[in-house]
Amino acid sequence: MSSYVLGLDYGTDSVRALLVDALTGKEVASQVVYYPRWKKGLFCNPAKDQFRQHPLDYLESLEQAVQGWWKQLPQAASQVKVISFDTTGSTPIAVDAEGVALSLKPEFAENPNAMFVLWKDHTSVKEAQEITAAANQSSENYLKYEGGIYSSEWYWAKALHVMREDNSVAKATHLWVEHCDWMSAVLTGTTHPSKLRMGRCATGHKLMWHKTWDGYPPNAFFVSIDPLLNGLRDRLPADTFTSDQVCGYLTAEWAKKLGLPESTPVSFSAFDCHMGAVAANVKPGVLTKIMGTSTCDITVASYADVGNKSIRGICGQVDGSVTPGLVGLEAGQSAFGDLYAWFRNLINWPLANLLNDSSLIDDATKQKLAEEIENKTLIALSEAASQLQIGEAGITALDWVNGRRTPDADQTVAMAITGLKMGSQAPQIFRGLVEATAYGARAIIERFKEEGVAVNSVVAIGGISKKSDFVMQTCADVWNCPIEVLESEQSCASGAAIFAAGACGVYPNVEAAQKVMASSVCKIYQPNAKAAAAYEKLYQQYRMLGEFVNANKSSHGAL
Amino acid sequence: MSSYVLGLDYGTDSVRALLVDALTGKEVASQVVYYPRWKKGLFCNPAKDQFRQHPLDYLESLEQAVQGWWKQLPQAASQVKVISFDTTGSTPIAVDAEGVALSLKPEFAENPNAMFVLWKDHTSVKEAQEITAAANQSSENYLKYEGGIYSSEWYWAKALHVMREDNSVAKATHLWVEHCDWMSAVLTGTTHPSKLRMGRCATGHKLMWHKTWDGYPPNAFFVSIDPLLNGLRDRLPADTFTSDQVCGYLTAEWAKKLGLPESTPVSFSAFDCHMGAVAANVKPGVLTKIMGTSTCDITVASYADVGNKSIRGICGQVDGSVTPGLVGLEAGQSAFGDLYAWFRNLINWPLANLLNDSSLIDDATKQKLAEEIENKTLIALSEAASQLQIGEAGITALDWVNGRRTPDADQTVAMAITGLKMGSQAPQIFRGLVEATAYGARAIIERFKEEGVAVNSVVAIGGISKKSDFVMQTCADVWNCPIEVLESEQSCASGAAIFAAGACGVYPNVEAAQKVMASSVCKIYQPNAKAAAAYEKLYQQYRMLGEFVNANKSSHGAL
Repeated sequence: MSSYVLGLDYGTDSVRALLVDALTGKEVASQVVYYPRWKKGLFCNPAKDQFRQHPLDYLESLEQAVQGWWKQLPQAASQVKVISFDTTGSTPIAVDAEGVALSLKPEFAENPNAMFVLWKDHTSVKEAQEITAAANQSSENYLKYEGGIYSSEWYWAKALHVMREDNSVAKATHLWVEHCDWMSAVLTGTTHPSKLRMGRCATGHKLMWHKTWDGYPPNAFFVSIDPLLNGLRDRLPADTFTSDQVCGYLTAEWAKKLGLPESTPVSFSAFDCHMGAVAANVKPGVLTKIMGTSTCDITVASYADVGNKSIRGICGQVDGSVTPGLVGLEAGQSAFGDLYAWFRNLINWPLANLLNDSSLIDDATKQKLAEEIENKTLIALSEAASQLQIGEAGITALDWVNGRRTPDADQTVAMAITGLKMGSQAPQIFRGLVEATAYGARAIIERFKEEGVAVNSVVAIGGISKKSDFVMQTCADVWNCPIEVLESEQSCASGAAIFAAGACGVYPNVEAAQKVMASSVCKIYQPNAKAAAAYEKLYQQYRMLGEFVNANKSSHGAL
Repeated sequence: MSSYVLGLDYGTDSVRALLVDALTGKEVASQVVYYPRWKKGLFCNPAKDQFRQHPLDYLESLEQAVQGWWKQLPQAASQVKVISFDTTGSTPIAVDAEGVALSLKPEFAENPNAMFVLWKDHTSVKEAQEITAAANQSSENYLKYEGGIYSSEWYWAKALHVMREDNSVAKATHLWVEHCDWMSAVLTGTTHPSKLRMGRCATGHKLMWHKTWDGYPPNAFFVSIDPLLNGLRDRLPADTFTSDQVCGYLTAEWAKKLGLPESTPVSFSAFDCHMGAVAANVKPGVLTKIMGTSTCDITVASYADVGNKSIRGICGQVDGSVTPGLVGLEAGQSAFGDLYAWFRNLINWPLANLLNDSSLIDDATKQKLAEEIENKTLIALSEAASQLQIGEAGITALDWVNGRRTPDADQTVAMAITGLKMGSQAPQIFRGLVEATAYGARAIIERFKEEGVAVNSVVAIGGISKKSDFVMQTCADVWNCPIEVLESEQSCASGAAIFAAGACGVYPNVEAAQKVMASSVCKIYQPNAKAAAAYEKLYQQYRMLGEFVNANKSSHGAL
């Protein structure tokens, strides 16, 4: 008999199911399923930064991801010891008094306000500012363990914004549940408010939960911001749990849907990057950077070192949010790969918009050609940009195309570029953008250091870390520190599997599971001393441009 | 018998020959010929802002432009009363002691340093700064009638830079001649230094000629900058002439080449935009704006009003450089259409660089397709950008992609863009660039007004004024003043014809010729009051961004 654990990783576009043999750490099966409604762009309005996901996207894709495995692995299903989830976040949804997600009810089935408000939805900038102002005015600063600034990417801002926008949703809302907590609750039949239990990760980093104020800020605090928030915090359970604990047991309905034994344990869920960091062997002094469309930067520190201190401008410091027993520290960049994708889309505008008018080639060829060129664009730009010397193009850019997550969350800032001349072609600008993402990451590292949190090296996971030598070497040079890249293509799912193994008793704890199951390093980027010295100077130009935009964001920031 | 005049307009890419019946103003024939070497990109290095033109490009294209006319118009050749040139500038070339342009000698035939240094060549930024510094330190400020700042687009900076770069050219150089003066000299056989006579326009605006210091600054001034300049000013004739005067008479050789009568008078030449302004009926209070890849902005004022005053930051104030009897004032933007072209090229990078790899279509179709889409790009962008509301995109851009010509010449500044977000697509950015060019023009208008030079309305000529309603309406709204667009597609050549008619006695003077021959207005753009108010605010954002780049040009300007 093997001991299999099932890690389920909900990313922005797809869910990945990963079946791991916990005794060996070997990956037995892996499957990715894209969310069908999301893929069609439903319920979103990118021009307004509105990004919503339908709960059925999550549920249907989950079934589909696991389907078919058990025919090929007839012995496996019965050997699955535990299930663990990780998801994006803060990605909350409104549920009614029975705990039903509103968009699963017929009257809200097509209403974006009744759906999950995805992490990158920035519609609630105003509400986030109000929450920050209220926290700063309160005697107890309820944001002191969340970096001092509440973000429009987070739970309370999103809840308030949606309820202000949509009276029908506000009326039907009993409470708001994070995607990660909702997944465990759905599979264990504990969505009803009387049964709901929540993980430490989302609550600590995004909901202002902290043990020093016995849970959440008081109801009066929320009511002072808007009476619409009245009662919401009281309906949340006061206790929260780390992901090495069991949340509940698989219901008969979901056991059937997934082809797994009824009553399989399901552990408490957490955010993807937090679990990914565990798969990456995160430890004090090491920053784990999940590099994708955006980045999530995770490190840990002992409670003795940072527990009572407020670390400025990050996304929270939460006891046990990453590794049980240590304080998990989260930061991140709102755009990393997204900045490259933005530029790729910008320069593919003629192909996307003008090619169709041509009578030179047929429609099928047009579509293939546009896709072929789009697919090649970033690779070709990287190749051309890597041939340029550092500073040769004279271009400085900010990475704030999605606003800024850290340091000092601010979704009202925007990207800027300087130094553009007639000779600034696509490769020159692309190099400037790659450097901008590296500078943005460096600003986070510097902030950690200023606040007394050591960052001696970086472990990178996520798509970009494996895809581009050029980007990774630029990062090593700009950060002037070594970067280890992990072998695993699915670190977040792997982290979920590690937590699962720690939760179900295959291992006595998460640390023991990590030793066997954590991913190995496949590549190390060392900083080049000469390049690092050159970037030292150019980084100051990034800072200077950032100061200009910060100081003038009402005119030079985002609308 | 008719009285025909031949206007020859040398633009950046081509020469236009225009035959006009001076008695009626009717255009009898017109022909454009592109410079063959220039078209191939020979002798240029855009990455280093090096743009050179071979004199044979000018001479061969001239012959070709006029060839063939006289068979179709058998009576016309004998009725040509006078020839007049206008050219770009400052576009000087080194000539030897015999007055031969160096690149016409076998040993220099392929040497870019022995060719015309085109107006937009910015290789001499350092030399321009040295000249400005020397002028500011001298007791007599020799730049006081050239805006106070010497530009890298101008004669002395270019001459010094080339001679520093190329010892063989420095040794062979006897003096430097502007393209406009060289054309008249070549056709009248007066290229020899003992015979050379020069027009008022180039010398006054670019060579620091002024009657109050009896010609050019003293030799000691130039030697203090660099001994390489020793003697050059002494070899220039001290007198200069307005374009209503005859420079000389067509040589037998050129008469044969052009099919015209020997001894046809040739009048003194001037810069294209100065003659274009005359065709546009320039007068005090009216700014004539020649809108092409860059702009040249011309107005006139009475000597009593501005003659003894130093107008800050423009490209010179020269008695008689435009209309004889008035002070001609020149300003301009280093990039207008060039900024749009830069963006078009940027977003056509995938088509230009990746299309060739595809096996989906054949090579001939690839080339046609790339051209077709490139040709459509600016039209489609204008159409999409015009649908956006003012300020909707939140983007602010500078127009300094070629540096800044005026106000306050500075080729070390560069373009910048702020307010970029994930939703900033090509049309949003293009709109920002169009607004940037309008803001740059407004900065010039404001400077004239601050310095006491009235600008009540604008007359626009040049390609862009006829091509884009969107650009022109944006300009009218940003400038908050009406814009008249001229009918003629060839105002500069037409201006040359007017001067020709004034010079040869068809008319008693230029004003009389203007009355019959000047172009008529074909369209008027009126500012929209609401739009003007909105732009009033956004223009301040342009100013603010410009101040940032000005203050930090060593890090955020051009390399």
